[in-house]
Amino acid sequence: MLRRLEILPVPGLPEVGPGDDLAGQIITACLEGAADGFDPVGLADEDVLVVSQKVVSKAESRQVIVDPDDPLAHKPLVLQESARVVRRRGDLIISETKHGFVCANAGIDRSNVAPDVALLLPEDSDRSARRLRDAIKHRANATVGVIVADTFGRPWRRGLTDIAIGCAGLVPVLDLRGTDDAVGRELHVTEVCIVDELAGAAELVRGKSDGIAVAVIRGVDPAWFGEGSVVGDIVRHPTEDLFR
Amino acid sequence: MLRRLEILPVPGLPEVGPGDDLAGQIITACLEGAADGFDPVGLADEDVLVVSQKVVSKAESRQVIVDPDDPLAHKPLVLQESARVVRRRGDLIISETKHGFVCANAGIDRSNVAPDVALLLPEDSDRSARRLRDAIKHRANATVGVIVADTFGRPWRRGLTDIAIGCAGLVPVLDLRGTDDAVGRELHVTEVCIVDELAGAAELVRGKSDGIAVAVIRGVDPAWFGEGSVVGDIVRHPTEDLFR
Repeated sequence: MLRRLEILPVPGLPEVGPGDDLAGQIITACLEGAADGFDPVGLADEDVLVVSQKVVSKAESRQVIVDPDDPLAHKPLVLQESARVVRRRGDLIISETKHGFVCANAGIDRSNVAPDVALLLPEDSDRSARRLRDAIKHRANATVGVIVADTFGRPWRRGLTDIAIGCAGLVPVLDLRGTDDAVGRELHVTEVCIVDELAGAAELVRGKSDGIAVAVIRGVDPAWFGEGSVVGDIVRHPTEDLFR
Repeated sequence: MLRRLEILPVPGLPEVGPGDDLAGQIITACLEGAADGFDPVGLADEDVLVVSQKVVSKAESRQVIVDPDDPLAHKPLVLQESARVVRRRGDLIISETKHGFVCANAGIDRSNVAPDVALLLPEDSDRSARRLRDAIKHRANATVGVIVADTFGRPWRRGLTDIAIGCAGLVPVLDLRGTDDAVGRELHVTEVCIVDELAGAAELVRGKSDGIAVAVIRGVDPAWFGEGSVVGDIVRHPTEDLFR
């Protein structure tokens, strides 16, 4: 069946701080946030909410104070947050985080935060996504999928893209193996990582400097809703990996 | 400025064969293809068309005949299409193609084609995208961006996502370095690969088994239109690469 998707930015989220009720802030922004002549996005069953890792980390008090005058002050934190260093070149550290993500600087961020703050990834972004999903279900009566998105590089391609570091209520990888393709031939390897594609799509309306931390994707296939997690379903175990 | 995106599948493309006028087929499908009660998508200035590599390769006669009973019959082609083998495990070959893409099996495909056919990547997907863009401009009077998309794996994450292997009329990597973030702090490394995010977004409405080879993305920021190519702007040179 054909489906058309809408990718909708959600304006109106306040600056998020430690201990904030992020779910409540997101619900209010969806229901009341309007800008540039756009009506509020609303919240409906089968919406997918894509939420920036930054606001999740901020609400979960993942700020660490660092020397604002030292651009490398967060480097000890990178090692502390890593399970192993995968590659190193100059100041650049590519490591495997404790969650199993392979990325630069263990996902630690000093942009869009105060100069004396380094922001760590959430402890468990799948759990963060589940909590947001549960809160939205109970407080806004909407059954949604939630993705926590972060911006990662890729080894062989320039530029960054947003991917999912946590999700809830969604099947992260759609397994099409064994289904027939359009000419009746069995598809061999076609496991599509839809949550990464959804996270990237949301980035297109969020931008980096606009302060839009949430996007709603509407029109998603109902079959994509279900159980799963990023760490359980997407993160590749080092033994399956040819590049670590 | 806030923008909302629509991701629209384009039904009605016929089965594409060697030498077909793909641009004409796409224009007709956009203007006339309707299904499931959806009106035709149309074609407008500042649309982005995402076109599956498969139909581009088919129209460009990239079919090679192989033994239909040998599931590994395409392996010699993989080596022929590769500049170097990057990793090998059993039957799996990860190589750098002549274009510079690092992917499995040099992008050669045996799904969605006849059992005795292996389909090679286009010789130059950026050129393919430019030709489609020029044809659409001249024959449909619409100034669009074009992306040729293929499905690639990732070293550290399960599941595949669609990315751009060619593009025209678009700035492939948006360089936000030097612009201020939401708290006035300079963004250090924020080069966003929008064409990969657009390709992945389009996959969400194209699916794999539905035979929808084209999607239109509408609502894109006018600033994203410009010059660039995947091979020139995205493919990382081996000397910049820590993982080859």
